[in-house]
Amino acid sequence: MAETTPKSWGETRFAGKRVPRIDGYERVSGTATYPSDVTLPDMLYGAILRCPYGHAKVKRVDTSVARTMPGVRAVLSDADQEAQIPWYAQPAPPGTPVRGTSRLFDPHCRYEGEEVAAVAAETPQQAWDAVRAIKVEYDVLPAVVDMEEALKPNAPRIHEAGNSVGPARESKRGNVELGFAEADVVLEETYRTSCELHTCLELHGSVVRWDGDRLTVWDTNQGPFPIQAALASTLNMPLSKVRVISTYMGGGFGSKLVLGKYTVIAALFAKKTARPVKLFVTREEAFRAVGNRPAHVMKLKAGVKKDGTLTALELTGTGEVGAYPGGTSAAYQIGDLYKCANVRVQERVAMTNAGPQRAFRAPGFPQCSWALEQMMDALAEKIGMDPVELRLKNYTAVCQMDQNKPYTSAGLRECLTEGSRAFRWDEARKREKGTGPWVRGVGVAAGMWGSQNGPPSTVRVSMYPDGSVTLNMGAADLGTGTKTVMALVVAEELGVPLKRIDIENADTGITEFTRPSGGSKTVFADSPAVRAAALHVKEQLIEMAAAQLKTAANGLSYRDGVISADDGSQKVAVRDLAQLKLQQVVVGIGRRGPDPVEKVVRPFVANFAEVEVNIHTGETRVLRLAAAHDSGRVMDLLTYSNQVIGGLTMAIGFALTERRVMDAATGKMVNANWHDYKIPTAKDVPAEKVVVPVDLHDTECNTTGTKGIGEPATIPGAAAIANAFYNATGVRVTAAPITPAEALAKLEERNKGRA
Amino acid sequence: MAETTPKSWGETRFAGKRVPRIDGYERVSGTATYPSDVTLPDMLYGAILRCPYGHAKVKRVDTSVARTMPGVRAVLSDADQEAQIPWYAQPAPPGTPVRGTSRLFDPHCRYEGEEVAAVAAETPQQAWDAVRAIKVEYDVLPAVVDMEEALKPNAPRIHEAGNSVGPARESKRGNVELGFAEADVVLEETYRTSCELHTCLELHGSVVRWDGDRLTVWDTNQGPFPIQAALASTLNMPLSKVRVISTYMGGGFGSKLVLGKYTVIAALFAKKTARPVKLFVTREEAFRAVGNRPAHVMKLKAGVKKDGTLTALELTGTGEVGAYPGGTSAAYQIGDLYKCANVRVQERVAMTNAGPQRAFRAPGFPQCSWALEQMMDALAEKIGMDPVELRLKNYTAVCQMDQNKPYTSAGLRECLTEGSRAFRWDEARKREKGTGPWVRGVGVAAGMWGSQNGPPSTVRVSMYPDGSVTLNMGAADLGTGTKTVMALVVAEELGVPLKRIDIENADTGITEFTRPSGGSKTVFADSPAVRAAALHVKEQLIEMAAAQLKTAANGLSYRDGVISADDGSQKVAVRDLAQLKLQQVVVGIGRRGPDPVEKVVRPFVANFAEVEVNIHTGETRVLRLAAAHDSGRVMDLLTYSNQVIGGLTMAIGFALTERRVMDAATGKMVNANWHDYKIPTAKDVPAEKVVVPVDLHDTECNTTGTKGIGEPATIPGAAAIANAFYNATGVRVTAAPITPAEALAKLEERNKGRA
Repeated sequence: MAETTPKSWGETRFAGKRVPRIDGYERVSGTATYPSDVTLPDMLYGAILRCPYGHAKVKRVDTSVARTMPGVRAVLSDADQEAQIPWYAQPAPPGTPVRGTSRLFDPHCRYEGEEVAAVAAETPQQAWDAVRAIKVEYDVLPAVVDMEEALKPNAPRIHEAGNSVGPARESKRGNVELGFAEADVVLEETYRTSCELHTCLELHGSVVRWDGDRLTVWDTNQGPFPIQAALASTLNMPLSKVRVISTYMGGGFGSKLVLGKYTVIAALFAKKTARPVKLFVTREEAFRAVGNRPAHVMKLKAGVKKDGTLTALELTGTGEVGAYPGGTSAAYQIGDLYKCANVRVQERVAMTNAGPQRAFRAPGFPQCSWALEQMMDALAEKIGMDPVELRLKNYTAVCQMDQNKPYTSAGLRECLTEGSRAFRWDEARKREKGTGPWVRGVGVAAGMWGSQNGPPSTVRVSMYPDGSVTLNMGAADLGTGTKTVMALVVAEELGVPLKRIDIENADTGITEFTRPSGGSKTVFADSPAVRAAALHVKEQLIEMAAAQLKTAANGLSYRDGVISADDGSQKVAVRDLAQLKLQQVVVGIGRRGPDPVEKVVRPFVANFAEVEVNIHTGETRVLRLAAAHDSGRVMDLLTYSNQVIGGLTMAIGFALTERRVMDAATGKMVNANWHDYKIPTAKDVPAEKVVVPVDLHDTECNTTGTKGIGEPATIPGAAAIANAFYNATGVRVTAAPITPAEALAKLEERNKGRA
Repeated sequence: MAETTPKSWGETRFAGKRVPRIDGYERVSGTATYPSDVTLPDMLYGAILRCPYGHAKVKRVDTSVARTMPGVRAVLSDADQEAQIPWYAQPAPPGTPVRGTSRLFDPHCRYEGEEVAAVAAETPQQAWDAVRAIKVEYDVLPAVVDMEEALKPNAPRIHEAGNSVGPARESKRGNVELGFAEADVVLEETYRTSCELHTCLELHGSVVRWDGDRLTVWDTNQGPFPIQAALASTLNMPLSKVRVISTYMGGGFGSKLVLGKYTVIAALFAKKTARPVKLFVTREEAFRAVGNRPAHVMKLKAGVKKDGTLTALELTGTGEVGAYPGGTSAAYQIGDLYKCANVRVQERVAMTNAGPQRAFRAPGFPQCSWALEQMMDALAEKIGMDPVELRLKNYTAVCQMDQNKPYTSAGLRECLTEGSRAFRWDEARKREKGTGPWVRGVGVAAGMWGSQNGPPSTVRVSMYPDGSVTLNMGAADLGTGTKTVMALVVAEELGVPLKRIDIENADTGITEFTRPSGGSKTVFADSPAVRAAALHVKEQLIEMAAAQLKTAANGLSYRDGVISADDGSQKVAVRDLAQLKLQQVVVGIGRRGPDPVEKVVRPFVANFAEVEVNIHTGETRVLRLAAAHDSGRVMDLLTYSNQVIGGLTMAIGFALTERRVMDAATGKMVNANWHDYKIPTAKDVPAEKVVVPVDLHDTECNTTGTKGIGEPATIPGAAAIANAFYNATGVRVTAAPITPAEALAKLEERNKGRA
């Protein structure tokens, strides 16, 4: 084990360039084996019958016909004792009585899409035929899909204990009343965001096989270890008997962090039939039942002095979670992004008859940004200050929510200045907006990500006598380029070209523990472990060389496959190390070091948008975007830029098009498909997307100098677009998305006011 | 890493009992996935066309018809450039020019069964149909199948450089001429052993899949690492891109230590067709082409004083290797089993037109034992001493071939005394032999195994918060119970019941390096690493407990899932360790410590046999057997006894029935099937088989006190049976096997002499 790990590299040879994905060919050629590609001999296919109502109780399930249909090998419902498994949709907030409030096939269906029964058959078609042949008698109940409605006393009861998830959470510092009294300008506005769906390209599902009492699961997830733990717990198995593999996956965005019912159902079927079982949800099921970014209502009040000093921020928010407990705070940036002495936050969480939420790229942060950054825009206008200036004015280099500890690096200032330069902000602000029907405008928004450095990560790096390397790591690659970035860390440390580095990852049977890839933690939590493992390889190679050259190890250095005496007197190549030939491989083990204690690690971001709005049709087009990020060192500029552009694309959807539409009368989702649920296409994304990495050479955050880019990429983009919309039209749309209808309504309202 | 590993345990709680195999259920129920069970989607099947002549040159291969046959996807022969791969049958003796003497499909076919072409098709039947449709023009050459014939100047040339593998090897100590001069009795005899086949229940083969430039191979082998290395070298690939998996296998006996042509052919087909390929040899191919125990001719001269002191031993031997270089010495025990000041050995190796040899359970040792132990019997008779006494008289506790270093333990004496007691030797020797047609006799033979402790072994042991454990080790389990033995080491150290221990093994992509399971090395080379890994787990658990209990680690001890203060003041269960819950798993890494330097590790054995011989038919029946072993600590008495009984069964075949029969006229094998090649069945094995473990508590051999049982189990059994045959009949059959025909011929010869 490398006991002493140096600070982050100075100059780099491999890192920081534009490097294509090392698994790019496999992914685009179809040779990569995603879980949905796993086909085992004698495999059965599962399909799930889901409740067609927003709220209902199951009175009777009749599977008698389904059981006799061609190819059907097993049917499960709550009538089967083995399926009466307590269930909770996701980890619940502490103190919430959750486990046991529901079952795998719960007779109380709390949302349209809840699992009622399932079939395993020889073909998917036979399974679906049988699902359709299951007869269910429902007692249909009134549904509530609006969170504010759900909290009213006479709302339909989704759970016996009521529709509220615990009492309202409150936090504060300073005294907001005094802060507002000090202010020259106080504004208050209510902002709303819509429920959005993850819409991962890869659907959720598992392939499951039992070997005796051992369970192997190929599963779509962002990290196999929590799935292993949850599955062992759910099925009452020793952890050692459960192996979860997720070597390739195709997008998660937070929706693939937890165990799915489909996995448990597949495991039960596989046990019952003694055959492997594949169970993947359909696209429509994915829209309804595997998570979403919940809607938020945020009443935000802010005070500012004429010189731009923020005096107080007060947020009163309500968040939705769907049919089961959970909850996301939309308050973090209110408390920490800008210097502000007086802050108060009150949030409550409501359950509705809708699919349960899951984490979604930067949980709570884009919502918060939507409110805070539009508010900053409004404050700037009121005091006649440039919006970039107002943000710079309230810059802080300390973490106000954590004892005012300094950040290891705090590049928000550089994000704003370098970003606005790259975007040509000053010039764009002065440009004519036009007279219609298309009018133009620009907007800015800033953000940060409250990443946690998280717990252990252990990685193995194996080097062979031929100089080739295997990197073995627990982290999944969600399609974000993790494998490439980690291979670059190995390349940087060992001087091995990428094409000679192979990766085994995300398999609880093979790799060491790390937390799942979420919260932008992968690069900053795992890359230091990768580096430590590579250093451990070096150490051992040097020891072997010292023994072979009959000299002291501390006079030797490794570089690019050769160990040389520092005085130039002798050297030996890795391929000539007798001990290495004997043992065939040298394995380095790396663990990430402890997190900084006296400082706080945070990535920062500023987004800039230019839009044009058709004041006759309400249509909004994004013309160009710029994103400046302080995410620490950039390992692969291409992968990094892809992450940023993907985040901006999601922000366009958030701002302009994406919204789950529920029918209040029936509690049913009316746009559970890619035609009616509008995610941006390539044509909605502008050609000009400027990515500005602000690398402040943060040597204190960790040993690779990295802070994470995944979530920051998507946080402030929607607010920047909303601010640009305002700049173009003079009209503020506070509810996302800014659809043509919404825009037209606001424009007409304004015109009426003018008339 | 556990830096200090204690000496082998004192009292044990799990080790030493009769424990059923932990993978027994999987193996007998068919749920264990052997390589031949691996079935991948879209998999093709390969079949090999083999030369039908003992010696021939290929003039032309016409694959045109085969290529157009139904289901055929690819055909390979030496005409295809990609298949022109240099080949050698196995690692050659140093200095032998081997690589490049042959090719994958060599046009010079040196034995019946050599590879000429191959087909990959949709079904095995289609592949075999196409193999039969390949037309080959051969130039048939004269063949030589007898090793002594092959060394004659006018013998058919198998290789251009001739049929001898290097010059004769010679070694000596003392002065044999002086030794023979000192002797009261000098005997000289020529002993012969036959070529035997491994006849593993599981056939040799591979399933091969390419993922981009990565190659995954499920292969029948005794350890995946040499296969990985040889495959990477043969296909010019980085080692990191080759993964070899051999989690289950069904018998090797030495024949599955090296890369097979079938694997390379399958890999070429898979590359060419972009589909997975399965290629297993048939039983008949296995008899001809995947190895054998070569025949030996040993002229042994020995001198002894009347008091039993051995004065000189001289061996002149010839060994056969089949069509490619290699070679096994049959001299080790001559030099080391008994105290003898004057020893000379001269051995030469001959190639013949027959399938190449491979290692076979205790290479050279059963052959040597056949000669030496019959000679000891004859010497004892000549000087009128009990054969057990003669062996005890020449007992030595030092390794004469290694600078007279002492053995860590030398239990040959106890093997002889405790074994003869268990066998009731003295009583049996006095018993009437009978008057016929069945006559009875008893025999003894001793042996040792020249095991090498070998190079590194690294193992991982993972413990989960629920107390379950995964043991991850490179060693293959050949069906010998390795998994069970290693799980017992974990159980002993961590107090975890076997049913909560899971094992991942023998997969170069998952497990750390260890040498293949051969040479009886597995238990003694890998179990210390397992123990060290378990100790490392303990250390880390104690550190976690110390942090949690806010006390010093050195005041805490682990036992059975609980860490307690030695003064009884406080304790915490593994399941309550907060840090362990956080990181989900604790991984211990263990490496075996250095081998003893000043001492030598060797297992010893004595076998006792009682037989009855029908003097009218020549038939020999083994009535009872006893085997006393000094193999160090017995981890699992059941697995250990199984190994011993398996070894004795092989010895019965060696002594009485097994012989490859070659037709000298054609160079073809005439008994390449289980009907004509006679291995013992259950009915040939006596009911009374006494296994006597001699445990001398060897604390110096390694940290688990183990020395290896696999090969010693089979070394002296055949000689003991031959000695019993002599004891029964008064006739010495020096050529193995003692078939009824051979026995009758010798009996008739003796009767003629008497008449």
